[in-house]
Amino acid sequence: MVLKGLLLVISGPSGAGKGTVCQALLKKKQNMYLSVSATTRQPRSGEIQGVNYWFKTKEEFEHLLVEDQFLEYARVYDNYYGTPRLEVEKALETGKDVILEIDIQGALQVKEKMPNSVLVFIVPPSLTELKTRLVNRGTDSAAEIEKRLKCVAEEIKYISSYGYIVINNTVNEAVGKVEAILIAEKCRPYYYDFAKYL
Amino acid sequence: MVLKGLLLVISGPSGAGKGTVCQALLKKKQNMYLSVSATTRQPRSGEIQGVNYWFKTKEEFEHLLVEDQFLEYARVYDNYYGTPRLEVEKALETGKDVILEIDIQGALQVKEKMPNSVLVFIVPPSLTELKTRLVNRGTDSAAEIEKRLKCVAEEIKYISSYGYIVINNTVNEAVGKVEAILIAEKCRPYYYDFAKYL
Repeated sequence: MVLKGLLLVISGPSGAGKGTVCQALLKKKQNMYLSVSATTRQPRSGEIQGVNYWFKTKEEFEHLLVEDQFLEYARVYDNYYGTPRLEVEKALETGKDVILEIDIQGALQVKEKMPNSVLVFIVPPSLTELKTRLVNRGTDSAAEIEKRLKCVAEEIKYISSYGYIVINNTVNEAVGKVEAILIAEKCRPYYYDFAKYL
Repeated sequence: MVLKGLLLVISGPSGAGKGTVCQALLKKKQNMYLSVSATTRQPRSGEIQGVNYWFKTKEEFEHLLVEDQFLEYARVYDNYYGTPRLEVEKALETGKDVILEIDIQGALQVKEKMPNSVLVFIVPPSLTELKTRLVNRGTDSAAEIEKRLKCVAEEIKYISSYGYIVINNTVNEAVGKVEAILIAEKCRPYYYDFAKYL
């Protein structure tokens, strides 16, 4: 008996396949809302305002921050990222599951504000595979790729703060695991009304 | 990456369908071991030694108890029930998942000794449905059924000690949820070897 939707936070190193897994999940499941984050980074080739991100200037972002309009925010690689609060809360109230594809700092903030949120860390099968995927994606320079790989060791330290780790060997496998996590989390005791058993 | 099998503890009121769900699960999944409990209660019509239970005398049971041969034990409705330790530990070491279909007192003991065990509470859709199932099963007297229904209110108090609650509307649905729980639990951080990411 689900009273509200589930708040699912998905993190992981760049190139692990977070975006791919999220998109595949949205295609498979009804009643799911992918939160669009706000950011001050430059759009990559092909990215669309309001679809990939809400692209903001630094001044616009800081104004929204002062007005407490973010569920979480963080600075990652010299840019701001934040999750707009209102849309997420509205979706949960209507029983939709919500996915936040955000970095670790943001995930930990969300967990603190919303203890029932579910944190999932997506990892590639290995660092070698991660490098291959980043190179093949073609959206980062060699220097940026090396920087991202160095960060992985740091990010791994926070893994124990996550409820779940999903190895992204294949997208279908990873999506299957996240679906299982959603079903399992909806079997948690706090979802249930026990009055009818007494 | 599963290092060992998962220890799954399934509890719930009589008539909720624990036995049915466990049997269906074993039919669907490979590499799963259903622990056979020892008990001092009388066999019901059709039950077989070593299959449904290891039926013991009170003296035999207490002797094994003194030798620390049980992972857990309890007294329920004037009889002893216990989980033989060695078979369970052997199965887990070989990577098999193990199901214990035991009462609440036993489940809490197991959780204390084995913190990574997964506790699942199976419930019927309602008390009315529970009574119907007990009557239809035909193995308990009217007085025993009333006694079991009174106990439900007591058992419900312990639900928050369980990781998961599964409403058994239909067996297929319930089995699907337990399968999801198994997949999700194998994505827990403690299962992972992070050295290869550093």
